[in-house]
Amino acid sequence: MQTTVLDKFKIVLAGTTHPGNIGAAARAMKTMGLSRLALVSPKIYPSAEATARAAGADDILANAGVYGSLQEAVQDCVMVFGTSARIRNLSCPLLSPEQAVAELLEYAHKPAEVAIVFGRERTGLTNAELDLCHKTIVIPSNPDFSSLNLAAAVQIMCYELCKTTRTDAVVRVESGTQIDLVSIDDLNHLYSHLREVMIQIRFLDPQKPRRLMRRLKQLFNRSNLDQNEYNILRGILTAVQESLSKK
Amino acid sequence: MQTTVLDKFKIVLAGTTHPGNIGAAARAMKTMGLSRLALVSPKIYPSAEATARAAGADDILANAGVYGSLQEAVQDCVMVFGTSARIRNLSCPLLSPEQAVAELLEYAHKPAEVAIVFGRERTGLTNAELDLCHKTIVIPSNPDFSSLNLAAAVQIMCYELCKTTRTDAVVRVESGTQIDLVSIDDLNHLYSHLREVMIQIRFLDPQKPRRLMRRLKQLFNRSNLDQNEYNILRGILTAVQESLSKK
Repeated sequence: MQTTVLDKFKIVLAGTTHPGNIGAAARAMKTMGLSRLALVSPKIYPSAEATARAAGADDILANAGVYGSLQEAVQDCVMVFGTSARIRNLSCPLLSPEQAVAELLEYAHKPAEVAIVFGRERTGLTNAELDLCHKTIVIPSNPDFSSLNLAAAVQIMCYELCKTTRTDAVVRVESGTQIDLVSIDDLNHLYSHLREVMIQIRFLDPQKPRRLMRRLKQLFNRSNLDQNEYNILRGILTAVQESLSKK
Repeated sequence: MQTTVLDKFKIVLAGTTHPGNIGAAARAMKTMGLSRLALVSPKIYPSAEATARAAGADDILANAGVYGSLQEAVQDCVMVFGTSARIRNLSCPLLSPEQAVAELLEYAHKPAEVAIVFGRERTGLTNAELDLCHKTIVIPSNPDFSSLNLAAAVQIMCYELCKTTRTDAVVRVESGTQIDLVSIDDLNHLYSHLREVMIQIRFLDPQKPRRLMRRLKQLFNRSNLDQNEYNILRGILTAVQESLSKK
């Protein structure tokens, strides 16, 4: 099978309650040419109901990774977009499905992986999970009845991807890299370092952290740091610590 | 409830085998703001499974018309488009979902009704049914696995309709990103402050500045800092200076 840009897309289902929705999501993915599924703490899985609803997309279920946390599921991804039926996290940039697909495709054409994350059937993504996402996708819906089924949401996003890439669906993945984006793992090292320094300079009180770290994470999550910028920021933090220790 | 152009659209399910798909289609319609459902010779209907899968869209089921033939179901419509996963009826004009929505909306703005028809789960629409349709919509899909679930196909078409007609949905997304951005003037204060601190901690040599400030400016310029984030960053820089002066 030929590799397509759609193979760079990981669909992540976080905390799914109904195994039927996992199977239906796998089917939705396969009909649109996507293949990589990751499950974070599914309530019931594996399950005969998931396999039945996959209706022939059981290869996607068989290859799906199962993880204990969203962090683990997306650690190899340079760009992670969450989905939300409601607009609740105002400080995080909101995108329509089309805008999100256009932006994600820019990264996926490079040797990098990207993820679209879908939350629980009733409650969606937690705030901690949304904080791991660079941006949030809001699927347009009826404001009086926005109860979109989980697999239907996956279907819509995969359809937008299929529609946009169909003409160049077999375009080979470019191996050359221009922007070397940092991984989620690196970002977390930056956040730990920043937190450590802020405690040293008494800007952050670990007893009363308030929302400080969350706000800083939201800022750097959406900034698409490249490796060079990451090194500069880490270098500044280290230089602060060295200056303090020389006192 | 307000009448919208979406009330002109009738979703017609012909010969549906599984009642769960009828319920899921009703839910898909309602999430996207559609309300008019017609069923042609459903195999099992009404059904508790349809109501369960409707998940709150049972008003659409309650108001659905049930007909003995497609002809009866669409007799009040001026424009009828069929859907197909495969391209089999070459004499009938083929449209993408987007093209179909654009064309149907031209009719729906007049005092006329339009229909989108979905066939049986396994076999789609019969040739006789396709002959009743003015045009055929082909939903893009994976050529190796085009087994789109019936309710998923309804979801995609209703999503295209919702996306195209719900300007308020788009506006909501955009207005969510309207944050209190900092001025260019503020940004320049931040850059001066950052430069001052980087010299103090010997990270920046004013004799050999290289491209350091330029890179940091590029990073923060594209981050769309809001006032709160600006205050946090200035606060961190001030706390670094206070810690150093206390030595």
